[in-house]
Amino acid sequence: MASMAAILSKTPFLSQPLTKPSPTSDIPFAAVSFPSKSLRRRNGSIRAGLIAPDGGKLVELIVEEPKRREKKHEAAELPRVELTTIDLQWMHVLSEGWASPLGGFMRESEFLQTLHFNSLRLDDGSVVNMSVPIVLAIDDEQKARIGESKRVALFDSDGNPVAILSDIEIYKHPKEERIARTWGTTAPGLPYVDEAITNAGNWLIGGDLEVLEPVKYNDGLDRFRLSPAELRKELEKRNADAVFAFQLRNPVHNGHALLMTDTRRRLLEMGYKNPILLLHPLGGFTKADDVPLDWRMKQHEKVLEDGVLDPETTVVSIFPSPMHYAGPTEVQWHAKARINAGANFYIVGRDPAGMGHPVEKRDLYDADHGKKVLSMAPGLERLNILPFRVAAYDKTQGKMAFFDPSRPQDFLFISGTKMRTLAKNNENPPDGFMCPGGWKVLVDYYESLTPAGNGRLPEVVPV
Amino acid sequence: MASMAAILSKTPFLSQPLTKPSPTSDIPFAAVSFPSKSLRRRNGSIRAGLIAPDGGKLVELIVEEPKRREKKHEAAELPRVELTTIDLQWMHVLSEGWASPLGGFMRESEFLQTLHFNSLRLDDGSVVNMSVPIVLAIDDEQKARIGESKRVALFDSDGNPVAILSDIEIYKHPKEERIARTWGTTAPGLPYVDEAITNAGNWLIGGDLEVLEPVKYNDGLDRFRLSPAELRKELEKRNADAVFAFQLRNPVHNGHALLMTDTRRRLLEMGYKNPILLLHPLGGFTKADDVPLDWRMKQHEKVLEDGVLDPETTVVSIFPSPMHYAGPTEVQWHAKARINAGANFYIVGRDPAGMGHPVEKRDLYDADHGKKVLSMAPGLERLNILPFRVAAYDKTQGKMAFFDPSRPQDFLFISGTKMRTLAKNNENPPDGFMCPGGWKVLVDYYESLTPAGNGRLPEVVPV
Repeated sequence: MASMAAILSKTPFLSQPLTKPSPTSDIPFAAVSFPSKSLRRRNGSIRAGLIAPDGGKLVELIVEEPKRREKKHEAAELPRVELTTIDLQWMHVLSEGWASPLGGFMRESEFLQTLHFNSLRLDDGSVVNMSVPIVLAIDDEQKARIGESKRVALFDSDGNPVAILSDIEIYKHPKEERIARTWGTTAPGLPYVDEAITNAGNWLIGGDLEVLEPVKYNDGLDRFRLSPAELRKELEKRNADAVFAFQLRNPVHNGHALLMTDTRRRLLEMGYKNPILLLHPLGGFTKADDVPLDWRMKQHEKVLEDGVLDPETTVVSIFPSPMHYAGPTEVQWHAKARINAGANFYIVGRDPAGMGHPVEKRDLYDADHGKKVLSMAPGLERLNILPFRVAAYDKTQGKMAFFDPSRPQDFLFISGTKMRTLAKNNENPPDGFMCPGGWKVLVDYYESLTPAGNGRLPEVVPV
Repeated sequence: MASMAAILSKTPFLSQPLTKPSPTSDIPFAAVSFPSKSLRRRNGSIRAGLIAPDGGKLVELIVEEPKRREKKHEAAELPRVELTTIDLQWMHVLSEGWASPLGGFMRESEFLQTLHFNSLRLDDGSVVNMSVPIVLAIDDEQKARIGESKRVALFDSDGNPVAILSDIEIYKHPKEERIARTWGTTAPGLPYVDEAITNAGNWLIGGDLEVLEPVKYNDGLDRFRLSPAELRKELEKRNADAVFAFQLRNPVHNGHALLMTDTRRRLLEMGYKNPILLLHPLGGFTKADDVPLDWRMKQHEKVLEDGVLDPETTVVSIFPSPMHYAGPTEVQWHAKARINAGANFYIVGRDPAGMGHPVEKRDLYDADHGKKVLSMAPGLERLNILPFRVAAYDKTQGKMAFFDPSRPQDFLFISGTKMRTLAKNNENPPDGFMCPGGWKVLVDYYESLTPAGNGRLPEVVPV
């Protein structure tokens, strides 16, 4: 979400028709909605079981315990590729099957399909969504070291072997083209590009991945890092008959909470017996002025503790992917990965995965394109897209509520920037904007940035 | 084709296996080839009839004669949008169904699907390819003039009404994003961008198109401008049981001729009784240093007159589309449009629709990406992609021949630049490179550029 406020979709949630829009007609987008009864019922009752992973099978790439020792010995003998922090995050993503059916860093045919079609065609002719390149860059020197070898070992920055890549393919890294087709701009200052592409090698290496051990970060948050298989197990244990995912990279306020609880209410109305919310903050790379993961997790915990969301029907877990800030292209990845974790409903807001244009004074993406593109994306037909209704602070009720266009003067829109400024200055938002425990975490975070004795906040550099 | 020489595909034509490559495996691309027997035979014999147009039906948008008068009167009453030359070329393209099933300039849902997925999902869930945006830009003033009208009239630059656009949708023209996603670069100097996007309006207008009369150019070449329906009629009249299309925007040399005749020979070997070549030069906008259409048509006529290609089994016609020079993105459009004209085989060379990078000293696209992307493109599964074998001048035979890697020293590669330089300087290429009649046309063309009395050629400015 680019903004903290849940923003208006043209047609309000309540009045959405029950059919998918035809992409070649001009039916307004917001028609994308809950599935029709024929989709969700079979023989008159809600069908059981979670949505199947893309490609039919969750691809897990972690070497089984009995073979780990042997594989580590093998790795020691292979040409080495050292991974960056972001490379390791993608390896984590791949290892647990978030990108199923992808079996490793992309080879060129997968890379090209991702860039041009945001999807992959499988051997059986079926199509799965895949909108961001999951690739591993190497430089000329590394390429030379690999020589004719068909396998390489991947190492972390401490010199430990972490994976083996087999049946490798090395191909050119067309950086400009990759950036242009993924972001729709080549303007300087895109956070992921600056961090992971500009100075990366001129070659990409793809292949079949075997990860030597489950990825751990030892930052106190690993208990929140459930793999798709673990999430599926948890969701099944809870007897979920509908799973609705909420991707976020920002603190949760009561507007978010409202739409999550409202979604659950509607799913119950539709006949689902036990809809479960997957509250799924992104845990990989984020830009410098986003609130860091550990503080966000503290904030999310408070929101659950304070009873804003019901822990019984909410699973909080970390999504290990790095953030591209690639708007309509990236939101597809965010949605697709959640299918693999068992979600069949996906909540999408205004300007998902968006940010300000790095050079021009405007948002990088049209705020409505994300949900439009998501609703038409190849390989996501099975997922039910739930566009946000706008929530704002209703001054007459003293709480976050769905915006009522008949009395706009009663509503206050609190932007992400506004919220951050308040928290930085240790001021309070209006009562009912965020639970007090959650707000305190934010204030504490910005306080922690204040150099002792100085009293002034360091300027947060916008990316 | 970026180059005049037919260039090597990794696996030679002869040894290609008969299956389509799996896009998620690393089977080398060049496996794309002739269809398997099961595809082309039914009940043991080659099936009759031409390939069906995309969407099942050729969409023709020209108003029937009895209604033209009435529609012109209607047009006179509507808000006006004046078309540029390129807009008119696209209107021509749409009117004859080259872009079937597209029924007019794109609305936003079609535009977004084109940018992100290079394809459109139809109401029945099927997918057709659509890789370049066919859009109509208007500026703020035009938008204001249109106001709340749901219909507009399109006018040519002479003030004549040419079409009506109904049930219109006006949406933002995200130029930077359009350019980045279509070309994979935003570097200044892209010919189509300079001509048709940079100074175009900030809005796009889509809708249902009704063209008031068949488009004519009155340049002596209209007889070559067969519509898809006319081409289908001609191909049926000739009893074609296979149609192989050859897109070009350059003069034909004997290397091209060799691979066209060789393709026919192979199709005959496969059991087709009457394969017909659709020699299909592009007739719309091209960049300044390309040989103009009228000269190219003269050259193609000579090639047929001189017997290099067999007129009995060749249809020469003009493809009215403007040129994007957008490489792997555009080659899909070139192929898709030919399906609508009845072609079920498409010949693709090195770096199709490519050009030099406008700023950097390299080709804009990887020379192999075009055919790779084409082979994996959604909606083109029905089309049989035929990658070029390399042809070069064999000094030992004194003619163009397929390159033999066992004796590279015997072959001479004559690039497009080299060919142009020779023709400009009124020098001759090696005997057998091009038929003498065809070569003379080229020499005449460059002579026609020489200012009288000066004797020196004006510098052709590279775009």
